[in-house]
Parts: sequence; structure tokens; C-alpha cells
Amino acid sequence: MDIPAEFLRRLAGAAAAQTLPRFRGAGAVANKLEGGFDPVTEADREAEQALRQLIRAEYPGHGIIGEEFGPENIDSSFLWVVDPIDGTRSFISGIPLWGTLVGLTADGRAVAGMMAQPFTRELFYASAGQAWYEASGVTRRIATSGKTALSEATLCTTTPAMFTENGRAAYDRVEKSVRMARYGTDCYAYAMLAAGHVDLVVETGLQPYDIIALIPIIAAAGGTVTDWNGGPAERGGDIVAAATAELHAAALAVLGAAG
Amino acid sequence: MDIPAEFLRRLAGAAAAQTLPRFRGAGAVANKLEGGFDPVTEADREAEQALRQLIRAEYPGHGIIGEEFGPENIDSSFLWVVDPIDGTRSFISGIPLWGTLVGLTADGRAVAGMMAQPFTRELFYASAGQAWYEASGVTRRIATSGKTALSEATLCTTTPAMFTENGRAAYDRVEKSVRMARYGTDCYAYAMLAAGHVDLVVETGLQPYDIIALIPIIAAAGGTVTDWNGGPAERGGDIVAAATAELHAAALAVLGAAG
Repeated sequence: MDIPAEFLRRLAGAAAAQTLPRFRGAGAVANKLEGGFDPVTEADREAEQALRQLIRAEYPGHGIIGEEFGPENIDSSFLWVVDPIDGTRSFISGIPLWGTLVGLTADGRAVAGMMAQPFTRELFYASAGQAWYEASGVTRRIATSGKTALSEATLCTTTPAMFTENGRAAYDRVEKSVRMARYGTDCYAYAMLAAGHVDLVVETGLQPYDIIALIPIIAAAGGTVTDWNGGPAERGGDIVAAATAELHAAALAVLGAAG
Repeated sequence: MDIPAEFLRRLAGAAAAQTLPRFRGAGAVANKLEGGFDPVTEADREAEQALRQLIRAEYPGHGIIGEEFGPENIDSSFLWVVDPIDGTRSFISGIPLWGTLVGLTADGRAVAGMMAQPFTRELFYASAGQAWYEASGVTRRIATSGKTALSEATLCTTTPAMFTENGRAAYDRVEKSVRMARYGTDCYAYAMLAAGHVDLVVETGLQPYDIIALIPIIAAAGGTVTDWNGGPAERGGDIVAAATAELHAAALAVLGAAG
């Protein structure tokens, strides 16, 4: 099932109307978890409501899953998965690497998706089997870098501190194998991978809504994204995304190596 | 000595004309250091030439120091310190957290400075004793957050891997004391500090041209920036920048604590 770019632009615009005025502003920040730091802004909640309204109106038979509000109509084989502000820590630090993620699954497989960054006015999405970038009124196709060797690759991760003990050792092996590593990238890293600017993203502990919207974009751009065992990325967890199948296989081998 | 905002805008524009068309493009990347990875783009060299030309024309008696070309007229008591692309690794990864830094020292003290991010079209600068932000044609004053307690602070650093052994232990103590840490921020972190979105930046191994332009902006915004011993930041090295004098003192105490 293909989603028209026009509808993805409307989703991005509706979310931006809620997020952007509160970016670097005085939106209320609540602590969602007792004892932990999980910032949730008004922007997140208002944008999720706006996204849900548009989806309900356009695709009334579809289900919707989001972080902030309960699942709707989840017996549908089409499920929308929304995350209005992926990278809330970037958001509350004023750093424009957060994004609005909206993905669609059909019988559990991610089939359409977008990532919008309203401050930089960028939209990345998959449509008609291709990956697209829009900014300043210009639309162009994007593709991954074509890099196949770890030694030539630029790696991104949000923070090495996200990995637990065994995962950290595995991540560190990958980092030692690559040309360069960048931290603090949130969902923006996957967009840069799809657009050919970075080559590899390795993360852990992702929720399905952190990755589902990005899967079709990466795939349509020529990349490969799975969990660390080569299984479907749609369930979240340990994720590796790569510019090519060769680079992906090389990263999986290093992640799975002993000691 | 105060530099008119109009001249800073011209500097930012001249650098942007060289950097922006090559951002996410195919600009040549050379390896400057044998065996090391130190990307230097055409953009860096062309932008530095453009900045030097403007400075020579406007302030012919002043000296100029940059990363790419030799010092000029360095016996002048006024020295311009330019870094067209601070954060070259962000630049080559497509991530818009790099910036064009231009600072002015008078007898070794930083007295004026700007940081421009041309992709997001943002300009941060100090002028007439105030700190300013410009974007989308709007100019507004900025100020640091006023946070005084480490436990409430958001900390930024480009990467914990920048610290050597003792420095890493000291950095880790600070990170454990704060509310939240963000990586991968380059010069953008200091701009976010001046604008009140983050509260503390701790880094090491900085060159004078990495920090001189930012010192007057941070100071005019109400923040404090020194080396880890409380000495002048103008020489680079180990740098700590904080939203308030109290937070700065608290960070220095933790950095200097034994073990």
C-alpha cells in the first residue's frame, strides 16, 4: 500500500504546527517515569492528537499506535505507528536532530514512512518504492552511499551509554572497525543514512515506533535494516542499518563475533 | 572594540556562499594528517579565503589567524581568529551542527565573536555587550539559563572519546553529576548554552580558533567560560563553559576533585 506524498506532507505540517512553536520555548516538560528522566512535552501530546485526527479522517479503517495515547483499531491489518518527537532529549536541548516519525505497517511489515524535521524544514519519505527528500520546495530522490567496507564507513549512534554490557562490547567492536563515529544523532542518523551522508547506524533498546517509519525509507534508498540477528527491524530492540547489504553483513558479523 | 552586526552578517554570508553549496555535496575531502583522519574540505579553504578578504578590506591594520592558511600581521594588538567549518566531522556526515566561527582578540582577550550555521540560517553573536540570535530575519537577545546546580544541568560534549585518561575520569565525574548529557554537539553546544537551552559544555583538546569566537557570546549571554583551572579560555585546551558562575564553580570543583 502506497501513501501519497501529499498526505505525508499534511501529516508533517500538522505535527510541525504543534512542535515547532514549542521548540526552544517554554512548553511544559513532565517526567513520565518515576525516578527516570523521560521528558514528554506538550508538543509531543498535541502533535500526536493532530496526527491521529488526520489518519482517522483519511484512513478510517486503519489502526493507530502511538507513544502518548492508547492503541486504536488494532485488529486492522494496516497499523499506523506515530512518534511526534523522536529524540525528545535533542528537542529539549534546542538541537534540531529530533524528528516526527510516521510509519505504516501492513500485516506487521513496514510499508510506508516519513521523517520530518520542522526546524530545518526537511522531509524524508518513501513513496512508490523510492526514497525522497524535500526541502525549500525542492523534491529529489535519495540513495544510500553504496559503501561496502566497515573501514570506509561513518557510523552513528545516539549514545554508547545506551548499550548494556554485552551490547556495549559488540558496539565497541563495530566502532573500532569503522572510519569515523558520530554520536547524538537520534532519528536524524537514519535519514542521513538514506541520503548517503553516513553509512551505518547501530543502536539498541529502540521501540517499534522509533524505527518503523524509517524502515521503508532506508529500504527504498537501497539500504538494509534489521535487528542484530538479521531479523525484522519492526519489533525494535537492537537495530543495525547499513548503506548496502555487504556493509550490513559485515556489521552483523562483527556484532555477533565472540569477545 | 565592538564589531558592527552588519559586518558579522557579511562575514557569515561570505562563508556560507562557500560552505553551503558543498554541504552534503561532492566537495573534495583531503586527509591533512598522515595516518590520521582530519577531513578538510574545499569549503573550509574557500570560506577562509573569503573571510580573510573581507577582514583585510574592513580592518587593514588587524592581524588574522586561521587553520588553513598562515598568520597575517600578527604584531597587531587586534587579531581575528577564523574557523570556517568548526565541526568538520558533522559537516561531512550531513549533520547541521557545524558552524563558521569568527572571533576578535584585543591584546589576547576575546572581545567580539560570531557563530553562523548556514543550513539552519542561524547567526549567534556578541555586539555592544549583548548576545544576539538571528534567524528568519528576526533578531533577538539571548541569555543563558540561569541554572546553578549540576543536578539540574544539561551537559554537552562532542564525544567522551576526546578525553585522555585523567581527563576522562574528570569528565565522567561531571557527567554523573548532571541531569542529562548530550554528545555530538560541536560548536553548536556553545550557541545553545548562550541561548539558554543547555547549561554546561565540557571539552578538551580545543584549539584557540575552536573557542575564541564563542567566548564573547557566552560572556555577553551571562555565562562563564574558562579552562579547567579557571584560567583564560582563549588558549583553548581543556574548556568548561557554564550558564552561571555558580554552575561553573561547581563543575570546576568536580573536574578538579581527586579520583
